Amino acid sequence: MPKQGRFITFEGGEGTGKSTQVKRLAAALEAKKIATEVTREPGGSPGAEEIRNLVLTGDPARWNPLTEALLFYAARADHTERKIKPTLADGKWVICDRYSDSSYAYQGGGRGLARETVRRIEAIAIDDFKPDLTLILDMPVEIGLKRSIARQGNTETRFEEMDVAFHERMRKTFLDIARRNPDRCVVVPADREVDEVADAIWQTVKKRFRLR
Amino acid sequence: MPKQGRFITFEGGEGTGKSTQVKRLAAALEAKKIATEVTREPGGSPGAEEIRNLVLTGDPARWNPLTEALLFYAARADHTERKIKPTLADGKWVICDRYSDSSYAYQGGGRGLARETVRRIEAIAIDDFKPDLTLILDMPVEIGLKRSIARQGNTETRFEEMDVAFHERMRKTFLDIARRNPDRCVVVPADREVDEVADAIWQTVKKRFRLR
Repeated sequence: MPKQGRFITFEGGEGTGKSTQVKRLAAALEAKKIATEVTREPGGSPGAEEIRNLVLTGDPARWNPLTEALLFYAARADHTERKIKPTLADGKWVICDRYSDSSYAYQGGGRGLARETVRRIEAIAIDDFKPDLTLILDMPVEIGLKRSIARQGNTETRFEEMDVAFHERMRKTFLDIARRNPDRCVVVPADREVDEVADAIWQTVKKRFRLR
Repeated sequence: MPKQGRFITFEGGEGTGKSTQVKRLAAALEAKKIATEVTREPGGSPGAEEIRNLVLTGDPARWNPLTEALLFYAARADHTERKIKPTLADGKWVICDRYSDSSYAYQGGGRGLARETVRRIEAIAIDDFKPDLTLILDMPVEIGLKRSIARQGNTETRFEEMDVAFHERMRKTFLDIARRNPDRCVVVPADREVDEVADAIWQTVKKRFRLR
């Protein structure tokens, strides 16, 4: 049986550069001969991708925060059982663009669903399954939103359309998660050159997993 | 403020005649000048109807039982908050074709999800909101399935395609729910003429709510 792979998640607000950094980290790991699978949430498995469309498009008021959290965790349960866990069991590393912390930040902090409610849904849906390392990309909300909105052809704008105060509460929640979980989370300042951010991430990953 | 309406649900396996009986009961209540709204699950509100398609179509293995339960309760949370409760608060009666007991019967008994897991999701999603009366239409599984499959143009066949043992476990769960909740549930034998079933239901409703 192969050695269990490592599970690394990227978190952060809109436009913080997560998907770029996910690719950079995957390339760096592959260069070290570590087989790596990149995935994302919401989505990442066929069923979860179908749910993705329900939550990321349409009017901000389309779902209330509780329904939204149940939809995100339905997608996450599918993705975790059908893709993440089997890939890790195969010995591959998995890098995921967003995971459970995003529900605390978006439906919890951002939309005001009680933290305890998110925790109860998480406990049922993924049985408290946790990443080995979570990289939280952080930058001022206005800068991230501007970058995100400037993206061409993006139709998944349901959360971007929520107001700036929503995004501020979300950022605060991510920083709070980092404080509560210092063994798992590292905050990476992301308002600088892509190469600098990538290098900071790589140093963190190398140290955390003792790579040469 | 108007007097709160009554909430009546119909439950039972495939092909037991629920939708016909829902209409008959609504007509009988309207004839007594009781304003009545008919609705259904999964669905019943715009968001929940969008989730309906994810759970009722496609391959039986499309979702595992846990993901499926989370999707049903996401739809139920939306339907309950945005349609059922406001309609009852308006003083109207609500008759719903399937509600939370179906999750115990389908995802629980039928697909083997632990009863306690269904209960925990229910507690979060609808905060243990209960119908005033639940009518469980009961008949032998083979007869119901034959009737259901004979329906023309039905594409929502994901559950019908599950094996007979699944439907037997489901029926057993409905009868078990009735035993555990004698104040709320009434089992109505449904393998007989539509008029006889409608009459049995009407007698039950009249007695339960002391209608003339």
